[in-house]
Amino acid sequence: MALDKNRKPRREDDDGTLIEGRNAVLETLRAGRAVDKVFLAEGGRGGDIAAEAKKHGVPVVVCDRRKLDQMSPTGSHQGVIAQTAAQEYVSLDELFAAAESRGEAPLFVVCDGIEDPHNLGAIIRSAETAGAHGVIIPKRRAVGLTAAVARAAAGALAYIGVHKANNLAAALDQLKERGVWLFGAEADGTAGLYDAPFDRPAAIVIGSEGQGLSRLTRDKCDYIVSIPMRGRVNSLNASNAAAVMLFETVRRRMQAE
Amino acid sequence: MALDKNRKPRREDDDGTLIEGRNAVLETLRAGRAVDKVFLAEGGRGGDIAAEAKKHGVPVVVCDRRKLDQMSPTGSHQGVIAQTAAQEYVSLDELFAAAESRGEAPLFVVCDGIEDPHNLGAIIRSAETAGAHGVIIPKRRAVGLTAAVARAAAGALAYIGVHKANNLAAALDQLKERGVWLFGAEADGTAGLYDAPFDRPAAIVIGSEGQGLSRLTRDKCDYIVSIPMRGRVNSLNASNAAAVMLFETVRRRMQAE
Repeated sequence: MALDKNRKPRREDDDGTLIEGRNAVLETLRAGRAVDKVFLAEGGRGGDIAAEAKKHGVPVVVCDRRKLDQMSPTGSHQGVIAQTAAQEYVSLDELFAAAESRGEAPLFVVCDGIEDPHNLGAIIRSAETAGAHGVIIPKRRAVGLTAAVARAAAGALAYIGVHKANNLAAALDQLKERGVWLFGAEADGTAGLYDAPFDRPAAIVIGSEGQGLSRLTRDKCDYIVSIPMRGRVNSLNASNAAAVMLFETVRRRMQAE
Repeated sequence: MALDKNRKPRREDDDGTLIEGRNAVLETLRAGRAVDKVFLAEGGRGGDIAAEAKKHGVPVVVCDRRKLDQMSPTGSHQGVIAQTAAQEYVSLDELFAAAESRGEAPLFVVCDGIEDPHNLGAIIRSAETAGAHGVIIPKRRAVGLTAAVARAAAGALAYIGVHKANNLAAALDQLKERGVWLFGAEADGTAGLYDAPFDRPAAIVIGSEGQGLSRLTRDKCDYIVSIPMRGRVNSLNASNAAAVMLFETVRRRMQAE
């Protein structure tokens, strides 16, 4: 078999979610496919692409051309790379419909700015195994459904919907209007893990790895729940915190059944 | 400030745990410092180093020189790189002593072949926050305390000991002889998560990411505990499974207090 020596080997974190080159990216945007971000080389010709991205509400990141060189799967990016989602996003309505079709009180996980793909993937996987009905992530300052997230989710993306909120605060307001109680996870919470009322319609809200819950998100939560810390380190990895709260919810709901 | 252009930039996953060059590696081994692995270039002069490694029970991996080129922090490895541990390992006795000094029933986590540094780091972090008294890992076919593990553990390594067992099966036997009950985590378990007797002296045994518990380990467990799976995916990420079992143990022990 002849090898094409000019072809750069595929990068490990690219499973076909990176689309590059001016025309390919423009067409992807026009087709309305889920695009998480468009990367444009500084000083390049990208005005039309930036305009098209804006039309679809897709964030544009202007960066050094060398960053694009590093990301590029094939090496011929023409100054433009689009990061598409490994799975299409769904609406909030669809998440509620999933709960309703199973005749269960809604159980969602809201990720307030998770940046590590291993963490987001593990959270999606735990949410699905715990029988949750959806995961909600923000559009900005957070990782989307990249190939690495899909891998870490270990197949769970086929069974649980992920909603990407343009505005996370507005999404939280909608959840509350529809009767969902918001349970934020934080070290200095007011509710104990083992007695927070998780049997209600619930969204478990997990903060970012570095910053925890943003102030705006924290203020919207009905309960701030503390996981008991019996050692010296006072916080858990974000996906581990989510798993602990999810399976405490499972315990409580199994008791009530 | 003048930059040394010949110096390769430090790799992100090297925080000083990689030691390279024939003399440096030999001296590190002779000093008895904790070395997780020695990498030797195929066809190189490494007989004396392999012998010294063997004397200290350190696994030797013979590999292509290009692999060493990629790993090398400085680019001058002379065909030899040692992966040292970011933190020294402790004995099983020290883990028991940690439980005794706190007047608590022992709570350990045994990792049966965790390969992903994010997972091992998160498990160590969760174990510490749950008030566990130690983590036990095998010497072979598993990640050791690398810099990436230390980072993922987020400071927990300063407060909880990690024992590296030459022979994991023998270590499990020792735990049992000393009154510790072994709780393996697996999908088709015989005990339910919410009623396994975690208030006893306990070791939570977590299998590898790909294979789960090895047969030998599984056979030694007193209980195989299932985390209830309410979705379609039937397993959790290894660190999430550990966190769920650890905090169920915390719940049970708080109830008993």
